[in-house]
Amino acid sequence: MFHSSTSSEPSTKAYRKVLTSTEQGVHVERWQLSHDEATPDCAFLWKIHKETLHGGKQEGVDVIRIDNGRLRFSVIPTRGMGMLEAQLEDLRLGWDSPVKEVVHPQYVNLGSRGGLGWLEGFSEWVVRCGLEFAGAPGKDKFITNTGDEAEMELTLHGKIANIPASEVEILVDSEPPHCIRIVGRVDERMFYGPKLELQTEISTVPGSNTVTLKDSVTNRSSSSQEFQLIYHCNYGTPLLEEGARFVAPVKRVWPINDHAASLIDKYDVYSGPVPGFVEQVYCIDPLAEENGLTTVMLRNRSSDKAVVMTFSTEQLPCLTLWKNTAALEDGFVTGIEPGTGFPYNRRVERELGRVPKLRPGETRSFEIDFSVLDSASQVAKAAARIENIQTNWEPELVRSAPKVG
Amino acid sequence: MFHSSTSSEPSTKAYRKVLTSTEQGVHVERWQLSHDEATPDCAFLWKIHKETLHGGKQEGVDVIRIDNGRLRFSVIPTRGMGMLEAQLEDLRLGWDSPVKEVVHPQYVNLGSRGGLGWLEGFSEWVVRCGLEFAGAPGKDKFITNTGDEAEMELTLHGKIANIPASEVEILVDSEPPHCIRIVGRVDERMFYGPKLELQTEISTVPGSNTVTLKDSVTNRSSSSQEFQLIYHCNYGTPLLEEGARFVAPVKRVWPINDHAASLIDKYDVYSGPVPGFVEQVYCIDPLAEENGLTTVMLRNRSSDKAVVMTFSTEQLPCLTLWKNTAALEDGFVTGIEPGTGFPYNRRVERELGRVPKLRPGETRSFEIDFSVLDSASQVAKAAARIENIQTNWEPELVRSAPKVG
Amino acid sequence: MFHSSTSSEPSTKAYRKVLTSTEQGVHVERWQLSHDEATPDCAFLWKIHKETLHGGKQEGVDVIRIDNGRLRFSVIPTRGMGMLEAQLEDLRLGWDSPVKEVVHPQYVNLGSRGGLGWLEGFSEWVVRCGLEFAGAPGKDKFITNTGDEAEMELTLHGKIANIPASEVEILVDSEPPHCIRIVGRVDERMFYGPKLELQTEISTVPGSNTVTLKDSVTNRSSSSQEFQLIYHCNYGTPLLEEGARFVAPVKRVWPINDHAASLIDKYDVYSGPVPGFVEQVYCIDPLAEENGLTTVMLRNRSSDKAVVMTFSTEQLPCLTLWKNTAALEDGFVTGIEPGTGFPYNRRVERELGRVPKLRPGETRSFEIDFSVLDSASQVAKAAARIENIQTNWEPELVRSAPKVG
Repeated sequence: MFHSSTSSEPSTKAYRKVLTSTEQGVHVERWQLSHDEATPDCAFLWKIHKETLHGGKQEGVDVIRIDNGRLRFSVIPTRGMGMLEAQLEDLRLGWDSPVKEVVHPQYVNLGSRGGLGWLEGFSEWVVRCGLEFAGAPGKDKFITNTGDEAEMELTLHGKIANIPASEVEILVDSEPPHCIRIVGRVDERMFYGPKLELQTEISTVPGSNTVTLKDSVTNRSSSSQEFQLIYHCNYGTPLLEEGARFVAPVKRVWPINDHAASLIDKYDVYSGPVPGFVEQVYCIDPLAEENGLTTVMLRNRSSDKAVVMTFSTEQLPCLTLWKNTAALEDGFVTGIEPGTGFPYNRRVERELGRVPKLRPGETRSFEIDFSVLDSASQVAKAAARIENIQTNWEPELVRSAPKVG
Repeated sequence: MFHSSTSSEPSTKAYRKVLTSTEQGVHVERWQLSHDEATPDCAFLWKIHKETLHGGKQEGVDVIRIDNGRLRFSVIPTRGMGMLEAQLEDLRLGWDSPVKEVVHPQYVNLGSRGGLGWLEGFSEWVVRCGLEFAGAPGKDKFITNTGDEAEMELTLHGKIANIPASEVEILVDSEPPHCIRIVGRVDERMFYGPKLELQTEISTVPGSNTVTLKDSVTNRSSSSQEFQLIYHCNYGTPLLEEGARFVAPVKRVWPINDHAASLIDKYDVYSGPVPGFVEQVYCIDPLAEENGLTTVMLRNRSSDKAVVMTFSTEQLPCLTLWKNTAALEDGFVTGIEPGTGFPYNRRVERELGRVPKLRPGETRSFEIDFSVLDSASQVAKAAARIENIQTNWEPELVRSAPKVG
Repeated sequence: MFHSSTSSEPSTKAYRKVLTSTEQGVHVERWQLSHDEATPDCAFLWKIHKETLHGGKQEGVDVIRIDNGRLRFSVIPTRGMGMLEAQLEDLRLGWDSPVKEVVHPQYVNLGSRGGLGWLEGFSEWVVRCGLEFAGAPGKDKFITNTGDEAEMELTLHGKIANIPASEVEILVDSEPPHCIRIVGRVDERMFYGPKLELQTEISTVPGSNTVTLKDSVTNRSSSSQEFQLIYHCNYGTPLLEEGARFVAPVKRVWPINDHAASLIDKYDVYSGPVPGFVEQVYCIDPLAEENGLTTVMLRNRSSDKAVVMTFSTEQLPCLTLWKNTAALEDGFVTGIEPGTGFPYNRRVERELGRVPKLRPGETRSFEIDFSVLDSASQVAKAAARIENIQTNWEPELVRSAPKVG
């Protein structure tokens, strides 16, 4: 969309390797590839390594580790093509979850703990919430086999993060800049239920400081189908620290509950780890440039390290900020979460008109760019870009949580 | 029982291969056998191939593919010894489920979606519903560890289709006609719960157009135990099409709900795919020949292709017809379902006297013959046989759904 | 603690083998070690064999079998480091569960059957119940992500028996008596939930008749955390038989419900198998020696075979006796269950002050010695030791079940 060098149309001359395929009956246990085999002319010493994790709840989990010669990151096909973490020199994107393993979906019962079972596997840097539903657990209606409306318990953040990818492929362009792509398909399908298909391409250009996530969600049913999609992007140390800041062009921000309301004046500033911290969640209408793109940033205290996320507010109009500066051992983390909606229960989101529908065969696309900044000048430049979008608009702070549900 | 050539007593001179055994600690990943190795004198070029599926939700699923030299079909030990599909030339038995993978039970949470989780793995040609319970989800009583009666949520169609077989063996008779048998045991056992054992023999004679399913269910407890068993046999294209017909000797047929009642006059005729179609379910008391056997058929519009199912109404007195001529992408399918009961919740079935009990150590046996017909003359002959059973009995059509529950 | 030869500090000169490690990405499928390789000077011909089970619901389950040259026993890393059984010549510790396989956790849905799903995998000699909760299913409160109190359904006996070990290691002391240790770590961790860590060392001295279980439970959260721990130690034939006796120094014993109350006079005597038997559960305050240790025994009718369990009543103040002398095919078994509490629902246990809390970083340790006695003189000696503890205290038998909950 906005990075032509990582467009969805890979060069026809590309290195290809299928790592997983339900159609071909393929599952590669271990594999690696490096620049000298595939792109000997490339100036950056990239490599890709696919392994299978072992032990405990991570037995059998596939992980693909990509090193673009400068930026390293990892993708988890077994957990819905989420991303575990990224690293640029000593700057890590991701967080230290109290969940220490990359948990195999077989060990996650989404319905447990009153619908909060998803939290037993939550440890990723980037995890998708969706697709049939995302957000808070609780009752909502659905249509049964008999065509009747019935009630079901939605579970926190839906299923997609606990569905293994059906197709996974590595592509490396033979033409410079030799873009590296991890392509995957995750099916959220059932009989008498949604037939939603997630197609993802996670790409990086060797030597760059950027990972690009391009998703498309397609409704494979003959009927219209609601869906929800929230990109739960999570950051802990070293970016998150006392004095770190969330920087974004904001039209309006409101607290999700009274607790968050009481602290809204500092919604964009972080404390250090606080034992017993209770999460604070803010809903944001972001402003965008004329092309529809917005830029948001989490920067450290000294403003010389940051992550910048760029996305389209047409695709992802809702931005949730989740502050959870709890003790390190309990998960010191903040979530920056662009989505098609906010993380209220789907019943609430539907009432507020924030549950999109896909017509039969319709596809919607989503793209997020993640860039790692490791110098004061880069951070200042990103801050200026954000400030520029904010120009002419005074952010509106809503001081009380809306009554919903 | 009624096919002496496929009796449960295999020739003592038989080729044997254990593919799975909990007792011997055996699990064969990949294996094959063909006529020239085991029965060089056999005129039919049969072969058997056991493989393990990979990718997505089917990672680790065992499938046994049998080709009898004319008819091919596949058995899924990992999903309770169900049958995925059969094929005779261009005539396929089975259907195109929106569930595209042969789903491993680890990815099925039967309790999800208000007890409809079974639908996340539903893609088979023949899938057993049972054994402790089958049919609709909903509350029913059970006996807890303290000997007290309590309520539990039954889940749609029970557990047996999501329990992997404990013992799987291939047998090929050394004597002509060299019957090929896939023998398996599936245990539905728990402490303070049922101790039900399913023993199955799925057999075919090389060169024939028939698969025979012989099951026995044994109560391994010292107490009597209820059980339910419905053979959910599912057919899509090419047999199912506009103008296809369900042909059976019928004593009485009634609709399961008002929706089905409104369309009962055409209960045995199929439409083509209809987007948004709501299932129609009919309950049938089938007539039988004097030996207790009945024959039912699904035939295509031009009456030159059909599947015929033969079974004993003493063993399986209840026949459910499930019509679901939805859009192709949502599951265009009809189920012909002989059972010990109908698919109401067990609570209802018990009230109506349709939940059989097994005494301690008691075994009940069930047999269904599936024959694939691919000529007008064969179809006409089967129709005549069915008509002959119907002679002297006018089918009774009950026009309103009984009040139950 | 009380067996210096099996202290938690293994000799620095020890044979070491990592079998499973999430940190190192290790999972050894098959391995063995024997005395001649590791301790050629040892007089006892010990060996250790690690295998992976196959077939049915036990596909992929790890089992470590230890033979100390006299006593054999097995440990199940995949099921939370429980112990399947022990054997000294023809005397077996363990029981014949109607669950015939060592069930992989992927096949256990703890929430099923009204929270009794644990019973689908229950077949061990020694299984831990806990750690966040143990005992009866039913509602109890918990704290959600928003810091609010909410209700969840606790499931029977908690999760720990269905969590695979993250780290498993074998150690054999190079110094006599060449103690063999199986060391493991099981994590019961989630985000917005407990961060409890079980560290276990199961050890035996070659040639001895004893297995020692040393556990420590650590709270890895920055907040205090409740926990519960019950050692469900289960015995069937040959020890359990008509006339077998439970022998323990008892301060007070009370029935858990009216059914048990009606039979309290014979609470320590066993019948043979009785079809349709309903469990009888007794709660016991055990007496201890001055050093805090108590000894309890299950002996056979002729008093020449027994198992003796020694533990500290400071660590494990509550002792549950579970009598389930049902038919052999339904599970003829008794449970001797030292615990931090009794198996009421946690809500009840908390009210009665029996749910301990761990401060941040705090560890509590637990140790049980299991000795197999196979002569009348050994049994008499153990009986005398128990009688000695009982001296000066008349056991109090409470004749009615307390009203709780």
